[in-house]
Amino acid sequence: MQPNCALKNETVVQVLTAFREKRPLVHCLTNEVVQEITANVLLAAGASPAMVVAREEAKHFAAIAGALLVNVGTPYQDRLEAMHEAITGAQEARKPWILDPVAAGVIPWRDNVILDLLKRKPTVVRGNASEIMALAGHGSGGKGVDSTDSSENALRSARLLAKEYQCIVCVTGETDYVTDSLRTLSASGGHIMTTLVVGTGCSLSALVAAFCAAWPDPLEASAVACAIAKKASSIAIQNSKGPGSFHTAYLDALYTLSPEHFRASNE
Amino acid sequence: MQPNCALKNETVVQVLTAFREKRPLVHCLTNEVVQEITANVLLAAGASPAMVVAREEAKHFAAIAGALLVNVGTPYQDRLEAMHEAITGAQEARKPWILDPVAAGVIPWRDNVILDLLKRKPTVVRGNASEIMALAGHGSGGKGVDSTDSSENALRSARLLAKEYQCIVCVTGETDYVTDSLRTLSASGGHIMTTLVVGTGCSLSALVAAFCAAWPDPLEASAVACAIAKKASSIAIQNSKGPGSFHTAYLDALYTLSPEHFRASNE
Amino acid sequence: MQPNCALKNETVVQVLTAFREKRPLVHCLTNEVVQEITANVLLAAGASPAMVVAREEAKHFAAIAGALLVNVGTPYQDRLEAMHEAITGAQEARKPWILDPVAAGVIPWRDNVILDLLKRKPTVVRGNASEIMALAGHGSGGKGVDSTDSSENALRSARLLAKEYQCIVCVTGETDYVTDSLRTLSASGGHIMTTLVVGTGCSLSALVAAFCAAWPDPLEASAVACAIAKKASSIAIQNSKGPGSFHTAYLDALYTLSPEHFRASNE
Repeated sequence: MQPNCALKNETVVQVLTAFREKRPLVHCLTNEVVQEITANVLLAAGASPAMVVAREEAKHFAAIAGALLVNVGTPYQDRLEAMHEAITGAQEARKPWILDPVAAGVIPWRDNVILDLLKRKPTVVRGNASEIMALAGHGSGGKGVDSTDSSENALRSARLLAKEYQCIVCVTGETDYVTDSLRTLSASGGHIMTTLVVGTGCSLSALVAAFCAAWPDPLEASAVACAIAKKASSIAIQNSKGPGSFHTAYLDALYTLSPEHFRASNE
Repeated sequence: MQPNCALKNETVVQVLTAFREKRPLVHCLTNEVVQEITANVLLAAGASPAMVVAREEAKHFAAIAGALLVNVGTPYQDRLEAMHEAITGAQEARKPWILDPVAAGVIPWRDNVILDLLKRKPTVVRGNASEIMALAGHGSGGKGVDSTDSSENALRSARLLAKEYQCIVCVTGETDYVTDSLRTLSASGGHIMTTLVVGTGCSLSALVAAFCAAWPDPLEASAVACAIAKKASSIAIQNSKGPGSFHTAYLDALYTLSPEHFRASNE
Repeated sequence: MQPNCALKNETVVQVLTAFREKRPLVHCLTNEVVQEITANVLLAAGASPAMVVAREEAKHFAAIAGALLVNVGTPYQDRLEAMHEAITGAQEARKPWILDPVAAGVIPWRDNVILDLLKRKPTVVRGNASEIMALAGHGSGGKGVDSTDSSENALRSARLLAKEYQCIVCVTGETDYVTDSLRTLSASGGHIMTTLVVGTGCSLSALVAAFCAAWPDPLEASAVACAIAKKASSIAIQNSKGPGSFHTAYLDALYTLSPEHFRASNE
């Protein structure tokens, strides 16, 4: 097993440049609470969002899009059927799909919902520490949708999960880790204020989908999405008085971020 | 019957301090339009939101949370069933639940929906003047979701409703009144710009739930939630050019508000 | 066929003055992603939004409101039934209704949904170039929900569509055109940043509905709604660093806009 590697700025520059050129279309089947911020984060960063939710068209649309996001924040029967249809569409068209297992480990019914989705073999699973630990069978459950564990503590769980489901696992927190069980990339920075704006985590999963649509290696793509979000948070906090202005500044920062921001320094 | 009493700053200091320490988890079954602002208001003020909507898990989750909000802005059959499940969960776990009877008095079908919920004995009903008057049988109906009456005019209705359903009634407007039919607390201040941002009323109901989760007396808890919202509005208007910047500044103000803001003055 | 006419400032002044006096109530059955911005745009501009979605009350409420918006961004069976009920209510009460045919031309199932709505004879159809061209049978399909054609190219399609369905067609883009097939009004200005905030197009359709509720000629009303949105965008861009601050500034500008802004110049 390789040691963790901090994501290289060089990689961010390459992937972000490819992303901006491609402007990928991302199909999002996400929760009721965060649809607007998810679309706005994608638009600000340079992607194109679409939320097509009917069973009758979810499969068709997932095949057209560059990647698919499935987020189970507010699942219910009809929407879950649309999600499974969309996954079929994405897989038949060989498009990556990302699973955001919101609040895994809290309620048995939801855990079964998530397990059924995991079995469909997502390209990437993106969650917080409590969620990833719960999926790997190590968790004690978060507080509702918020994590009560650190991402470091969840790294072992992330690797096990990645191995078991042969997918990329991205566990985010103060430091974000992205692993395929053998390789692990990390991104740090960001600001705790991010946790006071609903949908910053959920929309990060949408960014992961967007970068996976623009770059062939989902490990690197996911890590770059994390690095972009962290950099935008670091910039945003400088223009914020609280979570209201942070939300605004975060979208502005995603828009103004360019490969140059990552060429300058090499942390 | 006691006269109305302006809420004491001392009470606000006590309740807000307890609230910030507890960071209560609030389960929100609210309308489609305001889910994001509702979550953001709770986060900014210092609570933790969760919107769990499936019939299969609403009851379970309501028992975990510190309080439940039920808002009927956009009711439909499936969601109403989830709401009733959640109420059962909250009541079995002896958690407070708050009813926001959006647009009561406008459409008979909706009035029946609200009546069915009222019969489940909410801890607090939070509405505008037209809604509270309609529930007490005194109304002529608002203009859609906006009130066409003043909160003063609705105070008699609020007391009758509180008596009939043995609950707290909170009627908000230029002055907010909170009554259990015998005692009445009031909070004033705020700014009319609040009415030009969708969800400020709905998210106030979520704040009422959050404060009820953190303080044993729902009369005081509800009045403090009103006072916090009014103070945040008063601060926000100073940094606003219109409803866009007001929305941002309102969230920032909820975040920066501290017990100190209420210690300083004693209006 | 008359030549295109730039909308006269005089008309904007008249219509905006009537609109502000009337403060129309607009019933919106719109997509899941944009409900909050749609309500906020209506409130900021001076109208009153309501989103009543249940089949059981949609018809009743549409008759009460001044106008109805139907937007098919995220259609599914239950919601479509509510939309058809609402259309019946609006038509029986002789209220205007506006169709926003989101992503027309991309998926056959959705195109049938839109065709069924078109047959109900909307007062106005408001879409981007790709959508309008698709409805007229000239399109090659947009990229998801974004237009890949210019509004100029779609003007012929707009006129044909207006003639076939005896409605107003409003095709928006760098220049907005509003036509009843014989007369065509245009509005220009605005800023491309508008396309990076989700729901600016969808909420423009809501503004079209609001102005149609306040002014008897839907051609002029629609053109004025476009002119208001473009002017607000032009003002907003001056206070923006990116799409986050643009969104805020756009709402502020809709609020501060007055007939005076259009009296000054006569472009």
